[in-house]
Amino acid sequence: MIKASIGIDIGGTNTEIGLVNSAGEVLATGRIPTNEFSETDAYVEALSAAIREVVARAGGVEVMGIGIGAPNGNYYNGTIEFAPNLNFKGIVPLVEKLKEQFDYPVVKLTNDANAAAIGEMIYGGAKGMDDFIMITLGTGLGSGIVANGEMIYGHDAFAGEIGHVVVEKNGRQCGCGRNGCLETYCSATGLVRTVYELMGTTLLPSALREQAKQGDITSKMVYDAAVKRDELAVEAFRFTAEMLGDALANAVAYTSPKAIFLFGGVANAGEMLTHQVKRYMEDSMLQIYKNKVEVLISALPGADAAILGASSLVWKELEKESVAV
Amino acid sequence: MIKASIGIDIGGTNTEIGLVNSAGEVLATGRIPTNEFSETDAYVEALSAAIREVVARAGGVEVMGIGIGAPNGNYYNGTIEFAPNLNFKGIVPLVEKLKEQFDYPVVKLTNDANAAAIGEMIYGGAKGMDDFIMITLGTGLGSGIVANGEMIYGHDAFAGEIGHVVVEKNGRQCGCGRNGCLETYCSATGLVRTVYELMGTTLLPSALREQAKQGDITSKMVYDAAVKRDELAVEAFRFTAEMLGDALANAVAYTSPKAIFLFGGVANAGEMLTHQVKRYMEDSMLQIYKNKVEVLISALPGADAAILGASSLVWKELEKESVAV
Repeated sequence: MIKASIGIDIGGTNTEIGLVNSAGEVLATGRIPTNEFSETDAYVEALSAAIREVVARAGGVEVMGIGIGAPNGNYYNGTIEFAPNLNFKGIVPLVEKLKEQFDYPVVKLTNDANAAAIGEMIYGGAKGMDDFIMITLGTGLGSGIVANGEMIYGHDAFAGEIGHVVVEKNGRQCGCGRNGCLETYCSATGLVRTVYELMGTTLLPSALREQAKQGDITSKMVYDAAVKRDELAVEAFRFTAEMLGDALANAVAYTSPKAIFLFGGVANAGEMLTHQVKRYMEDSMLQIYKNKVEVLISALPGADAAILGASSLVWKELEKESVAV
Repeated sequence: MIKASIGIDIGGTNTEIGLVNSAGEVLATGRIPTNEFSETDAYVEALSAAIREVVARAGGVEVMGIGIGAPNGNYYNGTIEFAPNLNFKGIVPLVEKLKEQFDYPVVKLTNDANAAAIGEMIYGGAKGMDDFIMITLGTGLGSGIVANGEMIYGHDAFAGEIGHVVVEKNGRQCGCGRNGCLETYCSATGLVRTVYELMGTTLLPSALREQAKQGDITSKMVYDAAVKRDELAVEAFRFTAEMLGDALANAVAYTSPKAIFLFGGVANAGEMLTHQVKRYMEDSMLQIYKNKVEVLISALPGADAAILGASSLVWKELEKESVAV
């Protein structure tokens, strides 16, 4: 029988379920609406039913475990803790509840960015790489740090919040209550904030000035404008790349990674972003690190990346156990 | 027979040698003058003779290995690479050369700050701690980061240069050729630079203004003045603590350590420093990390700390090997 693992990606709107083999091929998928449940037990019941349905539909697989990527996921406790974008309040002991439903060898949970990092290590561009950093550029800026071949969780499972490193004293207001966090500049939201700031601080001509009158500007609009060489959009990307490049030069001084992977929304800008980020990073970096660190776009396929990341937790745990034996 | 390890601390002036048992007790010591050798082979010969003499003098010990702490020490290659304060130029393959002289199970080398971190883990305040950061405050600011119970060396052995994280864009000139590195503010040298800056930017009365006319100001003078509540010296310490506290709040967002240890010259200011550093760190830290991270003075005894740190490399390697078996 083919060995497979179940990857679960919990988002504010939907929970995506995927059955994945060890090569990273998605064998079957399912979905339940996260936001229609306000009560944990009912959610777990629906999730369990959906998992059973997916496994039955694929047929003929030996399920090795469940890996979950969730906002504010705590790897050590198997809990989701005070996630602002989920209906479930307080601390949700999701791993414990799923273990009551399934007797698979592994049931593990971590936050989205860590899941992406492990996914990159198991299926993606970081195969065989012991030291790398994953940066997820979405609504926020998440990160997962791998050193010595292991995910760094820290003493409380909350390690790897590079998005909340303060990069500008008295800088932009952050949702975390502080000022100048990296994610206020370099997430998809940060890119849009930069556009609004540039609309005020510069006289650069831009199609975005018209679009801003008709509704919210999105990072996709900024990207499309930049592709057409819209001056303000180009400057917004340049500034984002400079802020991110400088921050990554500092990040390198912590764990000296072989590569830094960019993942998610803004990362889809691809070369336009990585090329500039790499240049600014090299300019700012300490001599001993220069020309050693790659800046790469995640190799996980976009649509299934979150499910793959989550499912990879299972293989990583099995790998650890076999080493420990 | 008592098992012991040899710790070697290579400084610009002297090379200190110590024979240490697994409890961290120094059984015998020796010394050779580093700066009297410009040629590697002659240095290794003198060092080997001194090691043999120390072992013979202690008598009745089974030597398990040699651990070396050296500026610009590369753990992976066992080399000292382009150390600016040593006479040996280029890359010195010290481990290889010592292995020709001794057939001990372990011969390992790393940089001073990493050796201090491992020393803290084996003999000091970080026993049983899987996640912590060591900050050494001397002429420069060095650091060693431990996560998942392992030293983070990074892909090239150069991880853990928190002293060269840029904390102030367009800040103070650093010897590394860049600007605003943490060590330009928070090392012993940085503290003295702060005093000179405050002599210019403020009218604070200070005994240090007189002392400055009679020769170099030292961090010891600043400390002594601060103890006597000299206004400028007190402000210099406060500013140093603020810069370090802010930087450590950022450092926590990488590896979420249980504790941060301060070690060396400036750290001897003890409570005066840690108390303020802790306060600024807490003020600047992301909510999820607040009131979890201790700021502690290294528990390694001052005079022997460097030797202990170096010797601890041997026990750490033996521990790794026994886990791997």
